Amino acid sequence: MRLSHYFLPLLRENPAEAQIVSHRLMLRAGMIRQSSAGIYSWLPLGLRVLNRVEQIVREEQDRAGAQEILMPTIQPAELWRESGRYDDYGAEMLRIRDRHEREMLYGPTNEEMITAIVRDTIKSYRDLPKNLYHIQWKFRDEVRPRFGVMRGREFLMKDAYSFDLDAAGAKRSYNKMMVAYLRTFARMGLKAIPMRADTGPIGGELSHEFQILADTGESEVYCDKAWLATDILAEEVDYDADLEPFFREWTSRYAATDEMHDPAKCPVPASELVTARGIEVGHIFNFSTKYSAPMGAVVSVADGSSVPLEMGSYGIGVSRLVGALIEANHDGAGIIWPESVAPFRVGLINLRAADAKCVAAADALYAKLRAAGTAVLYDDRDESPGAKFATMDLIGLPWQLIVGPRGGAAGTLEVKNRRSGERQDLPAEAALNRIVEG
Amino acid sequence: MRLSHYFLPLLRENPAEAQIVSHRLMLRAGMIRQSSAGIYSWLPLGLRVLNRVEQIVREEQDRAGAQEILMPTIQPAELWRESGRYDDYGAEMLRIRDRHEREMLYGPTNEEMITAIVRDTIKSYRDLPKNLYHIQWKFRDEVRPRFGVMRGREFLMKDAYSFDLDAAGAKRSYNKMMVAYLRTFARMGLKAIPMRADTGPIGGELSHEFQILADTGESEVYCDKAWLATDILAEEVDYDADLEPFFREWTSRYAATDEMHDPAKCPVPASELVTARGIEVGHIFNFSTKYSAPMGAVVSVADGSSVPLEMGSYGIGVSRLVGALIEANHDGAGIIWPESVAPFRVGLINLRAADAKCVAAADALYAKLRAAGTAVLYDDRDESPGAKFATMDLIGLPWQLIVGPRGGAAGTLEVKNRRSGERQDLPAEAALNRIVEG
Repeated sequence: MRLSHYFLPLLRENPAEAQIVSHRLMLRAGMIRQSSAGIYSWLPLGLRVLNRVEQIVREEQDRAGAQEILMPTIQPAELWRESGRYDDYGAEMLRIRDRHEREMLYGPTNEEMITAIVRDTIKSYRDLPKNLYHIQWKFRDEVRPRFGVMRGREFLMKDAYSFDLDAAGAKRSYNKMMVAYLRTFARMGLKAIPMRADTGPIGGELSHEFQILADTGESEVYCDKAWLATDILAEEVDYDADLEPFFREWTSRYAATDEMHDPAKCPVPASELVTARGIEVGHIFNFSTKYSAPMGAVVSVADGSSVPLEMGSYGIGVSRLVGALIEANHDGAGIIWPESVAPFRVGLINLRAADAKCVAAADALYAKLRAAGTAVLYDDRDESPGAKFATMDLIGLPWQLIVGPRGGAAGTLEVKNRRSGERQDLPAEAALNRIVEG
Repeated sequence: MRLSHYFLPLLRENPAEAQIVSHRLMLRAGMIRQSSAGIYSWLPLGLRVLNRVEQIVREEQDRAGAQEILMPTIQPAELWRESGRYDDYGAEMLRIRDRHEREMLYGPTNEEMITAIVRDTIKSYRDLPKNLYHIQWKFRDEVRPRFGVMRGREFLMKDAYSFDLDAAGAKRSYNKMMVAYLRTFARMGLKAIPMRADTGPIGGELSHEFQILADTGESEVYCDKAWLATDILAEEVDYDADLEPFFREWTSRYAATDEMHDPAKCPVPASELVTARGIEVGHIFNFSTKYSAPMGAVVSVADGSSVPLEMGSYGIGVSRLVGALIEANHDGAGIIWPESVAPFRVGLINLRAADAKCVAAADALYAKLRAAGTAVLYDDRDESPGAKFATMDLIGLPWQLIVGPRGGAAGTLEVKNRRSGERQDLPAEAALNRIVEG
């Protein structure tokens, strides 16, 4: 993509309304625009990141055996009356009346809807287990939306729902999702620590939040100091194997959210305990028959009797993750995208838009990168070198490839790694190999 | 995907509420489930088709130079007051009050929102032209939703918006979208005829609807009989070239919607005129400064003065297209997917789930097809051959690959083409080559 054509409305000034760095940088880098409090449009650069984050989430859900569906945003109120949550949910639920005065709502989550779908379609234990997920916009009418996409009102969430015949099966489903979450966040370069968590309005007994430690986190979290030196699960996992050892490995070391942390009972001595702020990026729940029993989601078993389904739900804040990634990856000059979620891999800069030799050299590199399937943003604008460097640092592409008259004469290019800051003069071919192969 | 694990809730009976064949077949084939009137969940098989349709739409928008963004579903009422459409739009607009009693709405279309974004970010004629699109759920509160996804309330639409400095530029943008639409529908194997159309609540002078002729179409359309023998544009197009010849070629032959057809002025003699029902799958508009002028979306030009932007908008009903594709591609046994949008390319049937030899042969084929990157649904269930054939015909995958004891002994497989009905016994390797290469 040529920057001269790209819709990338950068802001020069720090927007006054943005209190945290990710919000500030997303606005400045032309990734998002606010249309109402807590409601954003994703512009081309932001949408590319959102799509990459979404795709990693999807691949790891698929790998764990979950199947993708897509439920609508608008739900009928009666479903929530069946579970008893309609009146409980409070003002965060966006309630709507349609033209026939039917009570509807904009889904803040989908336990009721998926339970109704499964109740109507899965009748036999032989059709179990099932794990169904969707990636869909949700709405929670926060009283004070803030921090950009980190706590917006309309937000993109991946929510999966597991259905099993018995508690042992439900625990297997829970373990699969725990492993899938560890891998999902690890692929994005994020250290998301699974922490014992309160179940809140979702319900149930067993629950973990995945928290990224960051000064801008919204809640206090507590964990064993050893977590700081722990690399999160990166290896491939056989989801057909017994995952209970994984579960024990990743939950045995102390980590708890504020609601679950009791200093009097904490097994970690104060000297070994880290108290920090955390950004919640995922939350998994096992809530047994909390929805299936009142809603009548049962299957027939071998002896002819019926039993309610054992359920769990598993959420990842997809749009929030984009903000969390920036909180964890930035410096004074701007964003530093991990390669796995970068909107483009390479920023190609032509320092002299008026110099025919530089243009020819940069155009040729652009063509070669595209032919190699490398996502490249080409700054072909007639701007000062300083403005071009500042733009590239701000938007944070992993690699910069700089074409200028000096290197042109020597037959070399400058390659800059955004994260390390390392710069190297390399012959064109070596520079391309470096960047295309990573 | 193994059918024994796949969430594919087939219906044996024709659902009483479904009046048209696409609605009936989508329900029977386990593609969708209704949750409220005109609001559907997309189950795994349906979502795969929806995603493929969406991807073709996206690729052709990108090819024509449009850039993808994503606007939210919920919009502030004040934007629509700026354009004057808030009160005009009527009961089809789903109006909402948030917890602070602010007036919001679920977007039925996005002219106002995109105009506001561009007004705030594009200030100079040098940043033009731009064409921005998104693929997002919309809501229109139809008084009587019907025909499944063909006239739902919550539906997926691709809407693009072009911004140009002058009328000539706007016409170039219009022509690009017309060509992109012809190619989009042609890739799906659909003959969508561009017809002169009324502009309705969107406004403007120049407008074309893309209509597929089908008995179940909602409106009457009129076109020159020659259209019936015309193949829609399939060749590659250079979008940088002058597209006015294309525009003339594709609009010179008579075709008009009911609102625009005037028998007294129709240039086609009655003997050459086809009167038919049409399904609208796309609609393009040039409406000049209808939104930019009242909303103050102007750019500065070379002489320092300001001019309002010339605009157009361009919609494709993505979810509706899934229904339209079935209306155009089915027989008595079920759906017949065009290869470009099929949820899986191949249905692999093992006729004898209890026969170890058949299982081994089918498992090996399954592994080979997956290794070749071919999307395959493998019916490994313990069901009767008749039930398996009926299921495969119902869900309409382009190719069936049938493993049974008879062919097993002879070392052959049966390959069936769903559309032609042609069956062939082939050695395994030849069968694979046939299917993998298409």
